[in-house]
Amino acid sequence: MVKRAHGESVLSRVVRIFETFGPDTPALRVSDVARRADLHVATASRLIDELVGHGWLRRDPDRQVRVGVRLWELASRASPTLGLREAALPFMEDLHAVVGHHTQLAVLEDREVLFVERLSAPGAIVNVTRVAGRLPLHASSSGLVLLAHAPAELQEDVLASPLPAYRRTKLTEPARLRRFLADVRRDGYAYCAGFIDEETTGIAVPLRGPDGDVVAALSVIVPNDRNARMQIPALRAAARGISRTISH
Amino acid sequence: MVKRAHGESVLSRVVRIFETFGPDTPALRVSDVARRADLHVATASRLIDELVGHGWLRRDPDRQVRVGVRLWELASRASPTLGLREAALPFMEDLHAVVGHHTQLAVLEDREVLFVERLSAPGAIVNVTRVAGRLPLHASSSGLVLLAHAPAELQEDVLASPLPAYRRTKLTEPARLRRFLADVRRDGYAYCAGFIDEETTGIAVPLRGPDGDVVAALSVIVPNDRNARMQIPALRAAARGISRTISH
Repeated sequence: MVKRAHGESVLSRVVRIFETFGPDTPALRVSDVARRADLHVATASRLIDELVGHGWLRRDPDRQVRVGVRLWELASRASPTLGLREAALPFMEDLHAVVGHHTQLAVLEDREVLFVERLSAPGAIVNVTRVAGRLPLHASSSGLVLLAHAPAELQEDVLASPLPAYRRTKLTEPARLRRFLADVRRDGYAYCAGFIDEETTGIAVPLRGPDGDVVAALSVIVPNDRNARMQIPALRAAARGISRTISH
Repeated sequence: MVKRAHGESVLSRVVRIFETFGPDTPALRVSDVARRADLHVATASRLIDELVGHGWLRRDPDRQVRVGVRLWELASRASPTLGLREAALPFMEDLHAVVGHHTQLAVLEDREVLFVERLSAPGAIVNVTRVAGRLPLHASSSGLVLLAHAPAELQEDVLASPLPAYRRTKLTEPARLRRFLADVRRDGYAYCAGFIDEETTGIAVPLRGPDGDVVAALSVIVPNDRNARMQIPALRAAARGISRTISH
């Protein structure tokens, strides 16, 4: 990449600085931030100093830079997903206790699934998702539920775009994906045996807001065996409880 | 407040814009943001447009502005508290299931307690805390545990500062607070019967990181009755489990 023009706004530089941090890169040196954000070291250094002053970034004793707890606080206390999380968590706890496997809450964001909560027991089965992590819409049970209930325009747009292979996902042909989405709407759930990992089955159901629109997906990741289908009723019941709570 | 000087940085304006949003003000009109952030409407409007473009703010159909999910995602996926939350949640679920009342995780931030996670059943007893909410250090069991194990300099600084009354908190005299903190260190927990609400007891214990330093507090809010003390062993056992998990 080339260095950006001088006319670029301070804000876009700040956005790029925050985009350099992630689950695999929670702490970076100033020079790494500059390189990854495509900024001159002096520019990055000055902005980082200012962000540290506001608590949006913090500097470790070894001088590495991290996202500050203050930014999490500002983003969380007024986040549109906080109410959803708080309504969903008690039902997710019950579901997690009964099902005994990963229980997740996800929303649609920029044509991807964004996972906003996950309950997992230590040593649970394989799960590629993380809190604040994303997956392609056509690759996971949560994404397929969200896509099946998305506005028609978005569905057609996704169906007309490339559907890249992701792990073992089978829905990389538009006609097949279209049939699968119709099944999800008819059945009331997405059942994805071995889509991401051979050993696991993802099952997701829609959560509806006050006007009946699907606002999120609730899912469990269970072993890929013949008991997996048994979890569907518990998942659907929990979804009804959460939908009722967020609609009042 | 007077309008700030022109020399003020874009970044401090952006920080003030985000500080206008909170649990009680999740959605605001542009003119409200401008007033609360002490900015000219034209300035606020331009910055808000740019922040909406980056997904850091979002505009509702009724034109009100909210914090964007993208900011939550950036702040969460690399947050220093994410690893702590993920390590603590399974133990918090067990504790919540056994104790049956609010179970909370808190860290020290800017001389206050910041709550980073809370598990609550619907219809549970009174609890003033919220996720991403704060309390004064000397007012809650979590704050008292964090203060009791904070660096000596911070403790002395808090003891030398005014200790404002907060609800029913009794520790508004330095000598009394100092004795209480010594008890917390000796006993291994903070037991606060009726400190915040007459009907509730807060009990908090320290969580220790790899080098033995206290990095967070685990707490429960239970009814203020003679059964409250019975929860201490379960709380201490969960804290040991979390401390062991974050130290490996």
